[in-house]
Amino acid sequence: MDYKVADLSLAEFGRKELTLAEHEMPGLVSLRTTYGDAQPLKGARIAGSLHMTIQTGVLIETLVALGADVRWATCNIFSTQDHAAAAVVVGRPETGGTAENPKGTPVFAWKGETLAEYWDEAEKVFDFTDEAGNPVGPNMLLDDGGDITMLLHLGVEFEKAGAVPGQDSTDNEEFKEVLRVLARSLENSKTRWTNIANDVKGVSEETTTGVLRLYDRFKEGSLLFPAINVNDSVTKSKFDNKYGCRHSLIDGINRGTDVMIGGKVAVVCGYGDVGKGSAESLRGQGARVIITEIDPICALQAAMDGYEVKRLETVVDYADIFITTTGNFDIIKVEHFEKMKHQAIVGNIGHFDNEIDMAGLAKIPGIVKDEIKPQVHQWIFPDGKKVIVLSEGRLLNLGNATGHPSFVMSNSFTNQVLAQIELYTKTEEYPVGVYVLPKHLDEEVARLHLDALGVELTILTQEQADYLGVPVEGPFKSDLYRY
Amino acid sequence: MDYKVADLSLAEFGRKELTLAEHEMPGLVSLRTTYGDAQPLKGARIAGSLHMTIQTGVLIETLVALGADVRWATCNIFSTQDHAAAAVVVGRPETGGTAENPKGTPVFAWKGETLAEYWDEAEKVFDFTDEAGNPVGPNMLLDDGGDITMLLHLGVEFEKAGAVPGQDSTDNEEFKEVLRVLARSLENSKTRWTNIANDVKGVSEETTTGVLRLYDRFKEGSLLFPAINVNDSVTKSKFDNKYGCRHSLIDGINRGTDVMIGGKVAVVCGYGDVGKGSAESLRGQGARVIITEIDPICALQAAMDGYEVKRLETVVDYADIFITTTGNFDIIKVEHFEKMKHQAIVGNIGHFDNEIDMAGLAKIPGIVKDEIKPQVHQWIFPDGKKVIVLSEGRLLNLGNATGHPSFVMSNSFTNQVLAQIELYTKTEEYPVGVYVLPKHLDEEVARLHLDALGVELTILTQEQADYLGVPVEGPFKSDLYRY
Amino acid sequence: MDYKVADLSLAEFGRKELTLAEHEMPGLVSLRTTYGDAQPLKGARIAGSLHMTIQTGVLIETLVALGADVRWATCNIFSTQDHAAAAVVVGRPETGGTAENPKGTPVFAWKGETLAEYWDEAEKVFDFTDEAGNPVGPNMLLDDGGDITMLLHLGVEFEKAGAVPGQDSTDNEEFKEVLRVLARSLENSKTRWTNIANDVKGVSEETTTGVLRLYDRFKEGSLLFPAINVNDSVTKSKFDNKYGCRHSLIDGINRGTDVMIGGKVAVVCGYGDVGKGSAESLRGQGARVIITEIDPICALQAAMDGYEVKRLETVVDYADIFITTTGNFDIIKVEHFEKMKHQAIVGNIGHFDNEIDMAGLAKIPGIVKDEIKPQVHQWIFPDGKKVIVLSEGRLLNLGNATGHPSFVMSNSFTNQVLAQIELYTKTEEYPVGVYVLPKHLDEEVARLHLDALGVELTILTQEQADYLGVPVEGPFKSDLYRY
Amino acid sequence: MDYKVADLSLAEFGRKELTLAEHEMPGLVSLRTTYGDAQPLKGARIAGSLHMTIQTGVLIETLVALGADVRWATCNIFSTQDHAAAAVVVGRPETGGTAENPKGTPVFAWKGETLAEYWDEAEKVFDFTDEAGNPVGPNMLLDDGGDITMLLHLGVEFEKAGAVPGQDSTDNEEFKEVLRVLARSLENSKTRWTNIANDVKGVSEETTTGVLRLYDRFKEGSLLFPAINVNDSVTKSKFDNKYGCRHSLIDGINRGTDVMIGGKVAVVCGYGDVGKGSAESLRGQGARVIITEIDPICALQAAMDGYEVKRLETVVDYADIFITTTGNFDIIKVEHFEKMKHQAIVGNIGHFDNEIDMAGLAKIPGIVKDEIKPQVHQWIFPDGKKVIVLSEGRLLNLGNATGHPSFVMSNSFTNQVLAQIELYTKTEEYPVGVYVLPKHLDEEVARLHLDALGVELTILTQEQADYLGVPVEGPFKSDLYRY
Repeated sequence: MDYKVADLSLAEFGRKELTLAEHEMPGLVSLRTTYGDAQPLKGARIAGSLHMTIQTGVLIETLVALGADVRWATCNIFSTQDHAAAAVVVGRPETGGTAENPKGTPVFAWKGETLAEYWDEAEKVFDFTDEAGNPVGPNMLLDDGGDITMLLHLGVEFEKAGAVPGQDSTDNEEFKEVLRVLARSLENSKTRWTNIANDVKGVSEETTTGVLRLYDRFKEGSLLFPAINVNDSVTKSKFDNKYGCRHSLIDGINRGTDVMIGGKVAVVCGYGDVGKGSAESLRGQGARVIITEIDPICALQAAMDGYEVKRLETVVDYADIFITTTGNFDIIKVEHFEKMKHQAIVGNIGHFDNEIDMAGLAKIPGIVKDEIKPQVHQWIFPDGKKVIVLSEGRLLNLGNATGHPSFVMSNSFTNQVLAQIELYTKTEEYPVGVYVLPKHLDEEVARLHLDALGVELTILTQEQADYLGVPVEGPFKSDLYRY
Repeated sequence: MDYKVADLSLAEFGRKELTLAEHEMPGLVSLRTTYGDAQPLKGARIAGSLHMTIQTGVLIETLVALGADVRWATCNIFSTQDHAAAAVVVGRPETGGTAENPKGTPVFAWKGETLAEYWDEAEKVFDFTDEAGNPVGPNMLLDDGGDITMLLHLGVEFEKAGAVPGQDSTDNEEFKEVLRVLARSLENSKTRWTNIANDVKGVSEETTTGVLRLYDRFKEGSLLFPAINVNDSVTKSKFDNKYGCRHSLIDGINRGTDVMIGGKVAVVCGYGDVGKGSAESLRGQGARVIITEIDPICALQAAMDGYEVKRLETVVDYADIFITTTGNFDIIKVEHFEKMKHQAIVGNIGHFDNEIDMAGLAKIPGIVKDEIKPQVHQWIFPDGKKVIVLSEGRLLNLGNATGHPSFVMSNSFTNQVLAQIELYTKTEEYPVGVYVLPKHLDEEVARLHLDALGVELTILTQEQADYLGVPVEGPFKSDLYRY
Repeated sequence: MDYKVADLSLAEFGRKELTLAEHEMPGLVSLRTTYGDAQPLKGARIAGSLHMTIQTGVLIETLVALGADVRWATCNIFSTQDHAAAAVVVGRPETGGTAENPKGTPVFAWKGETLAEYWDEAEKVFDFTDEAGNPVGPNMLLDDGGDITMLLHLGVEFEKAGAVPGQDSTDNEEFKEVLRVLARSLENSKTRWTNIANDVKGVSEETTTGVLRLYDRFKEGSLLFPAINVNDSVTKSKFDNKYGCRHSLIDGINRGTDVMIGGKVAVVCGYGDVGKGSAESLRGQGARVIITEIDPICALQAAMDGYEVKRLETVVDYADIFITTTGNFDIIKVEHFEKMKHQAIVGNIGHFDNEIDMAGLAKIPGIVKDEIKPQVHQWIFPDGKKVIVLSEGRLLNLGNATGHPSFVMSNSFTNQVLAQIELYTKTEEYPVGVYVLPKHLDEEVARLHLDALGVELTILTQEQADYLGVPVEGPFKSDLYRY
Repeated sequence: MDYKVADLSLAEFGRKELTLAEHEMPGLVSLRTTYGDAQPLKGARIAGSLHMTIQTGVLIETLVALGADVRWATCNIFSTQDHAAAAVVVGRPETGGTAENPKGTPVFAWKGETLAEYWDEAEKVFDFTDEAGNPVGPNMLLDDGGDITMLLHLGVEFEKAGAVPGQDSTDNEEFKEVLRVLARSLENSKTRWTNIANDVKGVSEETTTGVLRLYDRFKEGSLLFPAINVNDSVTKSKFDNKYGCRHSLIDGINRGTDVMIGGKVAVVCGYGDVGKGSAESLRGQGARVIITEIDPICALQAAMDGYEVKRLETVVDYADIFITTTGNFDIIKVEHFEKMKHQAIVGNIGHFDNEIDMAGLAKIPGIVKDEIKPQVHQWIFPDGKKVIVLSEGRLLNLGNATGHPSFVMSNSFTNQVLAQIELYTKTEEYPVGVYVLPKHLDEEVARLHLDALGVELTILTQEQADYLGVPVEGPFKSDLYRY
């Protein structure tokens, strides 16, 4: 079998954790039960790019259980859990796969890839083989951040142009690797990406960033196939962002620093869903939370929820913990670092590492970066003041803890599977464009997670449903409804 | 001056409360400052129908301060605060109005109107006088629930038909009054309502119910002028519903019953915005809260927020307090009442009184309704069991307390004023249809309430705004954003 | 029958409320069931002085149900609920009492007594009649604040001295009345109080203040009989103070001002049990709470509970709500009032009205006190700034709302009844001194309130009890245990 | 230098963590500043036995900074942090100690000692050397659990008896080691322990267990020197237990299982201080918490705090997480395990591992114990059901996380240092007996932690202090006060 992971001997431990995770991912497991016989993804060849974790393992094996042929890479060079990758490659117990003779799903991912390796492996998810043993491309994409979607679109574009720009056309180290891979491909085939794109029925995209790229392509007319925006399902954005961060923020701070959160002043930059979950998390541990916000509506929400809302400048010199949740950049700047207290803790749970100006921090004359342990550094100022930065400014819940827990990822990934089924089985209903999942599917995702929590759902009578003007079985709300 | 209220001698007390309320309604007061010179509503003749409370008094006087001529009725026969009505009629101190010589705004409302009186008074808000002293209709409507919008639409319809149906064409006691008023009108003029409708530039509507009626008319093609749906502004639905009910639910329970909420089991039927605020309110007092829900997404939210989610049947025999928040009907039924504990407390903060089957309750053989004090009744079952019902099943926060506090109403009413300005000054931008306020105005409403809470708003740099793809001054979010 | 109340026609409404309250006072009702047959207070003649409210009515009728003969006065000139007094006088339904022919318990209390009336009525609780119809004194006292205990002790002292000091020996207006009453008594009898004191087996005292007076007397050797300090039972101090105030603080603020608490900055002066309950109450409504404290342990608790802890001076100019909970005096002073924001709200839920310097406030040159409604005043400063003071600085939960709810008073009053039974039936075990209730009775009080809340108590096995070194049935904790 | 630790090369990492921890232990650091010059422990030779963690390192170095000569062992074979031991041995930077030439404090501890090693090392803390280089015993003990106090008392007893019982006199494996060590000692010296005991001025004891042993000895008359019970300082019991567990409970669950706590049903057995902190911790993460209790007062508190209170039997079949906090034994029994859901999680944060019947669990026929990772096991029942047990039933916050955070330990350990100073410098004030620290020192401990949290303490005026009857500088409360 075709795969590239760290070490297949980790598969046994990975399988144990996969089994535990399945219990916490009732949405995915229930899809296996519901659709196992119907095999709605029979014939689907899914190229996937998403953090190769235990939870993703359960996602992959669910896609396979529904009939799909799957190839997988990671979307982040650091986030792979090697035991998860190994277990997926070896395969579920019923396949009889072993480390010597793996029978699972091809995965191309390990923790700590280089950028060159990352793009070499990303390319491999496009190399399927049909039943006759001939090379063939995927007919579905499942993406997180849009990297493989971009690779395919650029491939098509360069094939149309007949040439790939030289690596010196860009200063971006990562994009040089993209160009390298596509140039190599163009040497081998002038139509590879074009052929693939013709086969692809659609892509389901996990994140805000990836979705923005898709909307941009759609607006400029270059989108090649329909896309479902999984990110904006209620059961994704309101659960993954809010409840996921409520769990993983303090988990990351605790594992990274062992510092008591109770009694401390914590600044949360941003009061969107991530900020709301983060603030609740810190308050639940007894911290006094201060919010910064740019949006007056979110700022007013924060105030009504009992938080102090201030500019960072106002509180930077006495707060103990600083967390960015914005998706924007330059939130915590050098001028802020300079005013912080000794042993202030700084971390990011928003998006990219530029929420915190790490580059600027490193350039302060005389500053010393001292590693306490992996992903935890004290930056020692010339006057001896130390500031602790978690995960080098990258997502601390991934870097210092284990990311979102399985239950919340089950919501996100059940959306992913349903989106794959929609695009693959109702192709004609989705002309090229960017869609959110229909509300009845969003509600279905939620419904699949209720039993695990002992929730009893009330059922409308027909009379009540008529009174509200909704079907008895939903959907229950207008698209404007904000939950 | 032309008005009809309970007693002008209450005006002094009303003025005192209006002055206190202005401090709590910074959005409205700030509109007076911002737009006082520009007089954007100069020439507007606004016919208003909305609960005639102190907060509404501040709204009315804000509309007047912006140049409008206003006539006002209530939208509910019980909710008028007589001292508020009196003070608005007498007028602001600078007018020099007195009870003997009132110089304020005409109001037609008192607490405890009959249905006949209600519709007689509603008709009067259409009777403006122009500067020359000639009768003229309004050119703007401000409505809550859609009663005066309906009156105008039916008036036009019946004038077109040349006849008003007889009162015996309906079983509905209230609709008989509508027909009576319109028949009387048709006798006097065949074109009155048609002329008025031609002048009306639009209506701003406060509630879900009114908005549904407007969408229905728009769909069937009978809507006569554009409408702004104030109800679905974030600063209305997410503030009025959630934070308003958080305040007024326990206030109503406390005033009605003096029963300790802490330690009790409280069932909240529905976990929409009203339910969310209600649950938080009860939990904040130490109750153990159980949620019932029909929508799996809201049910999952409730569970993730730490609430037990069950069907009413499962918990009805041991809960102490039952609150409906659904907007649906038949939520608490006779079969539930029969299983409740002795001295269970039942109330509604949702919408109409049919959330609780009051009619069914009254029909239980042998049951006795015993008034403890106004708006608080014990229903004594044949076996001696008593159940306490608040406000006869109508909105308990209005019936047992004083409704939403000024600050939250300031959000709703600032939306109303901005909607009136939009429709009146940008008529051409609003062809017949139903609109929500543009997001930048929704954000503006929030912004006007920040200073009062000591909130410091962070301002984006141009670079940050570009990175996010939004203007520095907003709006900051897509229409899909759920807050 | 011998009584003095406002109006017996209020008895019917009072009875209705008594019946409702019984359901919320399971401790008292259960004592009636448990001890009704045994009649442990048979022969007890209890002179009581405690706020004559509905809850006290349930207490009185419980004492009677256990065999006692009772006479009652209030301990506060404002706090009497006239309908409660009337209903207790008329008597429980089974007595067949009516307003014309009352058959209940003698009460001497009405809302709004003068100080002279107060002490005249207080004296009357000592005038029992024995079965033969002869005058006789009480043999038990139940006191709140220590007024009747003081009257009796001073009476004995003056009889011993043979004279009562003249009223001009004191500047204290209230103490003049005490001297007047005792002088009148001494004229009639030289041994009245001495005889009574010889009969009294003990007193149970409700409050901190009363308890302090008792300890002082005990230390100086002048205490005439044993006393039980009910105030320091866990089920009193930790429940009445914390949970009672959690309920009644916001109830008082809401009824007094209708101002939204959510989003506001509230300062709670003091973080003892009252402060803890108050802070929780305000936070539960979405306020941002700041604590002031003098005790470093309580201050550290507040910080660990997530509250900001500052001196009043630091925050006085931006907070919206100020609540004193200290039991000390001069907490909010003129210099603070002068720095407050316009429309700041000030109230006291601690002890006496001198927590707030009301006298100093009134002396500010040019200040005007303007009543908005009873118990709610705006103090208008010369520059137009207004500050709202609740209940004239007295306890706002009593003045603006209805005090602690029945359930929490059931805890306090069950302690009272058990204390009366202890002192009356185990006289020999209590030599003159001041005692707290034995822990097993404190636990019993709690136990009697569990069923009403659906609590299932776990029972130790004998082995587990032995392991812990406690009896299976308790008491479970050492006297040092802090709960 | 005389020491025995795992590996001195860990000292550098340990020093880094010690430096970080000092910032979080302001009480200890401030004692160094305050008493550094006075050297109140000059001449003290302290034998210490307490978990050899980073926090204990800061404690040891504080004792040394105050003049003491110190020798240290651990009180638990598993809890030593080897890098902490190494850093303490190497010594503070100003000593110039290195791994080759350590100059710190002798420590006898490493992670994973055998019982034999444990008691061999414990003995060594008694082997001081005086300035002249002669062997001498300690004159102070600092103990956690009472092991070295017991060793000394038994040593004296056996010397008096002239013989040590044979190891076969006991079935207890651990006690055999105690007898072995003491027998070896008696061979070498007939008066060693007696001489030491004559020199010892006192012991400060950290835990409930140790304190109970001391009270038992005192009651039976065998206590040889005074003891201070640090455990019952408010700043220990109410902080370490409540806030420490609020932090470390979820930290342990998260690190052990990565399972989402939000939305789950968690049972907390016991609602003492540990239970209160645990319940708050779980609720803060969105769990629905159910309490079990034997004490009706604590049960009523739990109910009033909004928790469901049930017997374990009632909820065992649907709860997801079970946490014991009782200090009792047999709380979770085989019959409970058998009824639990698949993948239920079970852990103990109370005291000994017998809170959970681990022995009984292991004896279920056909059950398999499968290690997922260290300290996390799934017990697989014959029917395939798995239950996850954390830390083999021992304290999960120590086993799965890093125990209480530094800030809370700073409170406990500042009590320890103050207790050492009291006993050492005021020997005459403490005749043989068991004492709690005087309240003014308890308050001092709190005071030393306020600045770090930005707390401003209010200072009483003399008039206010007189009114309350307390000194301006405290202590402020009676011994009965419960906080």
